[in-house]
Amino acid sequence: MKKIEHLGIAVKNMEASAMLFEKLLGYAPYKTEEVPTEGVNTLFFKCGESKIELLEATNEQSPIAKFLEKKGEGIHHIAFEVGDLATEMNRLIKEGFALINETPKLGADNKLVVFLHPKSTNGVLIELCQDIK
Amino acid sequence: MKKIEHLGIAVKNMEASAMLFEKLLGYAPYKTEEVPTEGVNTLFFKCGESKIELLEATNEQSPIAKFLEKKGEGIHHIAFEVGDLATEMNRLIKEGFALINETPKLGADNKLVVFLHPKSTNGVLIELCQDIK
Repeated sequence: MKKIEHLGIAVKNMEASAMLFEKLLGYAPYKTEEVPTEGVNTLFFKCGESKIELLEATNEQSPIAKFLEKKGEGIHHIAFEVGDLATEMNRLIKEGFALINETPKLGADNKLVVFLHPKSTNGVLIELCQDIK
Repeated sequence: MKKIEHLGIAVKNMEASAMLFEKLLGYAPYKTEEVPTEGVNTLFFKCGESKIELLEATNEQSPIAKFLEKKGEGIHHIAFEVGDLATEMNRLIKEGFALINETPKLGADNKLVVFLHPKSTNGVLIELCQDIK
């Protein structure tokens, strides 16, 4: 894992949370992007070499809607940047980790992403991501 | 906020989780440190400019013991590095954020730390930290 690419935070109301995180961080977000396949609307702040990604559900089947219902607002996942996604996926499968999706998906911010199941990672939902060149 | 200094992850069994995160990240932790005032034992991995901090309770009154009881294992807090802790504390109080401790405390890894109450930060426990020179 090369770095923390971003932290995903589940929020109920993007407008209110965008204002709150702008006050917290002391600067404005740099982009917003909808990911229709995941049923989420996202908003990104830079923070050093990492990003803070706010996630709002756009429909009731969205994983974020389900997360909010079960756990309420809070940190949803950690995304690590990897050099080569296929290599890292193979390494982690051999080490016994469970992948949620074995075929990389298109994520926000021009990435290919794979999620590890939190049951195999101490309750932490982990995303691996690689830039699409 | 200058960068994500570290992510704190609450674990039940440090030995098992240290092995798990070593497999996940692909490299070994660089230090372990007990913080008796917080009732925690910590273990750190580097990850880019940030760190992953595993947190295990050393007694039943530890905030980590209470977190595990309520929420189970998972991400406990995000720590942001700030330039000047006093300046940032004053700025955030003026913005309406609630501090858990108004007097900075000694944290792991040679830091002065202050926590913001998750009620004022979208359910996310946030630590601000400054290196002790």
